Amino acid sequence: MSRFLKKQYQNLEPYTPGEQPKNQKLIKLNTNENPFGPSPRAAAVISSGEVSKLMLYPDPEASELTTAIAQYYNLEKEQVAVGNGSDEILAFSFMAYASEGSNIWFPDPSYGFYKVYADIYRSKAGPIPLTEDLRIDPKKYKNLNGTILIANPNAPTGIALNLNDIEDIIASNSSNLVIIDEAYIDFGAKSCVPFLQKYDNLLVIQTFSKSRSLAGARVGFAMGSKELISDLNRIKFSFNPYNLNRLSISAAAAAIRDEAYFQQTRQTIIKTRETFTKQLKELGFTVLPSSANFVFAKSSRLSGEEYFHGLRERNILVRYFGKEPISDYVRITIGREEDMEQLIFATKELLGKGN
Amino acid sequence: MSRFLKKQYQNLEPYTPGEQPKNQKLIKLNTNENPFGPSPRAAAVISSGEVSKLMLYPDPEASELTTAIAQYYNLEKEQVAVGNGSDEILAFSFMAYASEGSNIWFPDPSYGFYKVYADIYRSKAGPIPLTEDLRIDPKKYKNLNGTILIANPNAPTGIALNLNDIEDIIASNSSNLVIIDEAYIDFGAKSCVPFLQKYDNLLVIQTFSKSRSLAGARVGFAMGSKELISDLNRIKFSFNPYNLNRLSISAAAAAIRDEAYFQQTRQTIIKTRETFTKQLKELGFTVLPSSANFVFAKSSRLSGEEYFHGLRERNILVRYFGKEPISDYVRITIGREEDMEQLIFATKELLGKGN
Repeated sequence: MSRFLKKQYQNLEPYTPGEQPKNQKLIKLNTNENPFGPSPRAAAVISSGEVSKLMLYPDPEASELTTAIAQYYNLEKEQVAVGNGSDEILAFSFMAYASEGSNIWFPDPSYGFYKVYADIYRSKAGPIPLTEDLRIDPKKYKNLNGTILIANPNAPTGIALNLNDIEDIIASNSSNLVIIDEAYIDFGAKSCVPFLQKYDNLLVIQTFSKSRSLAGARVGFAMGSKELISDLNRIKFSFNPYNLNRLSISAAAAAIRDEAYFQQTRQTIIKTRETFTKQLKELGFTVLPSSANFVFAKSSRLSGEEYFHGLRERNILVRYFGKEPISDYVRITIGREEDMEQLIFATKELLGKGN
Repeated sequence: MSRFLKKQYQNLEPYTPGEQPKNQKLIKLNTNENPFGPSPRAAAVISSGEVSKLMLYPDPEASELTTAIAQYYNLEKEQVAVGNGSDEILAFSFMAYASEGSNIWFPDPSYGFYKVYADIYRSKAGPIPLTEDLRIDPKKYKNLNGTILIANPNAPTGIALNLNDIEDIIASNSSNLVIIDEAYIDFGAKSCVPFLQKYDNLLVIQTFSKSRSLAGARVGFAMGSKELISDLNRIKFSFNPYNLNRLSISAAAAAIRDEAYFQQTRQTIIKTRETFTKQLKELGFTVLPSSANFVFAKSSRLSGEEYFHGLRERNILVRYFGKEPISDYVRITIGREEDMEQLIFATKELLGKGN
């Protein structure tokens, strides 16, 4: 820390991303990446000519991409804002809406970054504990005072809220902005995008990092009323107008237009998740009902830490959070079928069942 | 604007980027892009395999790139932070160092974004007017109170400060952070990076958008003491840890390692600038002595606005700012030799000399 850093940031606790190991031999199931590559059309559009145009600035409006997203969701282009990953969209949202000292309500546990953003923008974080079975209790989100931010499905549990509950939350908070973070929506839950026709206090955030296999390209987006989207663009144009690079704009636009590849890969992941969940349960695990591309699971015989380290020794990386009330759990990304088979094999070994 | 936007941003005046025209026939000399494509090695590294890894998150430390930059400048890796364009580095610097209500001093005119950042972070902007001949007067930057931010060479003038003057500014402000924005440094001015060995109150910002031909990839970086760099990374990890995408990390690392291509293209631009400057002067223009990949020029016979519109009608796009004290000037990017020849031809036409 230098002698020049603002006082308010000196005790800031930054977000800790999941490990990005250099060891390529590891089966990497710790950061909810998609095991399948991006749409071949995304790859093609990058190679064909876009690279040779890299000396030119990108379109700061990223019109090609906002248009493609708007078409996909039957929205107007002015209802879509894009960001350098959905993290940047979240950061811009906190900048725009979470006033210093005002309340921001979100589930706990949830995506760890929400607390970091609340800290950096000095809004009063109101983490709302999950129920004992690690669910979001929608009743606790009604008639609040302040901004509301809910991941649906929630992370790291994978459990989704149903649309009725979400609508009740939006409707009962008409003076508050409700942000629904749908990073994992495409793996089984229902998007609340259709509510945008009815409510002006809803902002929906999605990403190309999961179901579209573009985590390495950094593309996220927000959908909302034209007024909300113009707020986010006002922040963007005051912070980093060229926030999306040329290649990512083209790749993401090509990816969202490739519906067949999207359906095929996400269905494969859902199917693998269901098989894997069944196998884990047969080995005595508690597995939360997941609508995401990961499962949150605990063993009846191994502690979360033991299981995490045991897998790591067997070259399988999962995410362990090591804090209450989830210290018995690990979060396991759904990879290829063969990755999950190896994980089941390693688990049997650890339980003394495999040898 | 929505009813939820924070009061403090409701009157924010965002930065206006130079026009990115859809009309491909235009000769585009308005945003200081490099006419030459990126290093062929940068293009190669993107195509070969990196695209197929896009489903994986990038390395949040971007180690490949920070290592390559550190090697190039004989620094330690911990003295380099990378951003999604140097705009993001500037934004993080304002976040980290420009406290609400504190002073931030910069030349006026200079890069228009400095004022926007001062506004968004509510620091007290202290624009210091240029001299009558549009130079930075180093005396005005000594013993100030607050953060100092100087573009060297300055934009849109292209005029560079010499290193002695910069050192005097750094030395006389030992309680203040001095940020030198070297976006255009490679076209003729001298970098103050060597001063990092001597002063802990210096932060140097550079970009891959100009001399490395990667404006479309969005890569900027800061160099400073390990403490300053750790501040910027603390902000980054609290805002957007994966701020650089995989392709841009690889492309930029390959570009900075390709010294031969870099030297060849920047020398060509410098040579073209000198020829072009001479030609403009012969047509009665005042041309400021530029150390950048653009020139700032005014005609003795056409107003800035007339010249801008006249060129535009002839399919040549330059940048016109239209405000005092630079309303007579236009900023012209140095493109390929043939682009500049066409511009000279069009200028002669406009002056009634060509037909």
